[in-house]
Amino acid sequence: MRKGVANDPQRKDKIARAALDLLAEGGLRAVTHRTIASRAGVPLGSVTYYYATLDDVFVAAFELMQQEIDARFDLPAAPTQAVARAQIVDSICGSSRASAREVVLYREMYAYGSRSERVAELVRRFEQRWIASLTTHFPEPAARALDALMEGWTIHQSWNPGRLDADMVARAVDALADAYTAEADTAQRAKAAAERPTTTGANHR
Amino acid sequence: MRKGVANDPQRKDKIARAALDLLAEGGLRAVTHRTIASRAGVPLGSVTYYYATLDDVFVAAFELMQQEIDARFDLPAAPTQAVARAQIVDSICGSSRASAREVVLYREMYAYGSRSERVAELVRRFEQRWIASLTTHFPEPAARALDALMEGWTIHQSWNPGRLDADMVARAVDALADAYTAEADTAQRAKAAAERPTTTGANHR
Repeated sequence: MRKGVANDPQRKDKIARAALDLLAEGGLRAVTHRTIASRAGVPLGSVTYYYATLDDVFVAAFELMQQEIDARFDLPAAPTQAVARAQIVDSICGSSRASAREVVLYREMYAYGSRSERVAELVRRFEQRWIASLTTHFPEPAARALDALMEGWTIHQSWNPGRLDADMVARAVDALADAYTAEADTAQRAKAAAERPTTTGANHR
Repeated sequence: MRKGVANDPQRKDKIARAALDLLAEGGLRAVTHRTIASRAGVPLGSVTYYYATLDDVFVAAFELMQQEIDARFDLPAAPTQAVARAQIVDSICGSSRASAREVVLYREMYAYGSRSERVAELVRRFEQRWIASLTTHFPEPAARALDALMEGWTIHQSWNPGRLDADMVARAVDALADAYTAEADTAQRAKAAAERPTTTGANHR
């Protein structure tokens, strides 16, 4: 530990939060050790003490952001699958959907993840956590499909003003949630059978 | 037109392509008028002649990228909806899926779109074009849901090595494509009826 810099977890978080603010406002280009120190109101030495590289700050900052997002959702705690479905719909187009700031930060995280293996690893970990949380209610392929739908719709909505229609979203969520059940298998077989030519042997050439 | 700089559309494209290369390799921070000129092998004055601002170059570069992606897909030309569905599956996890370079460029475009109203407008236009192309085969809500699924899965896949299972993807595509049909309405009503308490009047309080 360097002289004169106390190991203060609150200060460490404060610095990561300042980095998030700068990222949200001006993007990667706006973030340096110096601008972070100024924004956090701490000495430059304090920033470099806790975070030797900007990569370190970004990793801490994105982890902080993800904690805030996670705090809004607790899918495993949903008592029934129906409640879990409603939570998913709400996370896409309802009150718990991503804020404008979060969307901007996600875009920055993804762009930076192309350049930083550690941030790419973080993104993978966030995704795995989401899928694990979805699999407490849905079969794994449905969890993967729902996860993709949530991501895609959140992104698309972020470019367009106005909310998506909740009924439209609910139907898509229901369709994916039900797509990998035994019932879906039966329905698919029935459909395939219906589409098959009725004259036996017609396809046996 | 300035002296000594011919209006040459090929050179204009060449400059935009050089900007794309730099963006893919080093991100926004790697792109300046100077690095573009050097990469394209043209005089600096030529870059500033065709593109007064970096914003102008980025808009042209992302348009070029989108043209290349569009050239791989022609959903409206698909003879049947089944063929269109197969093309969608292929665009998510098959041979026509986004390349690693395209994914990196998309991430840059999105991040930069937070800072540039013109690039944000471009992203909106790309999305509207995709949805319009999907609506040649699917009802509009299905087109929107499929568009979100394609986007989300493309992004998630980009962080993880290995391909998604095509059967899993096909089931999700089928589920969304069928989610807004009259049949889906009937099925939903039947399901709702099945879940309703059987004792008539039980809910009439």
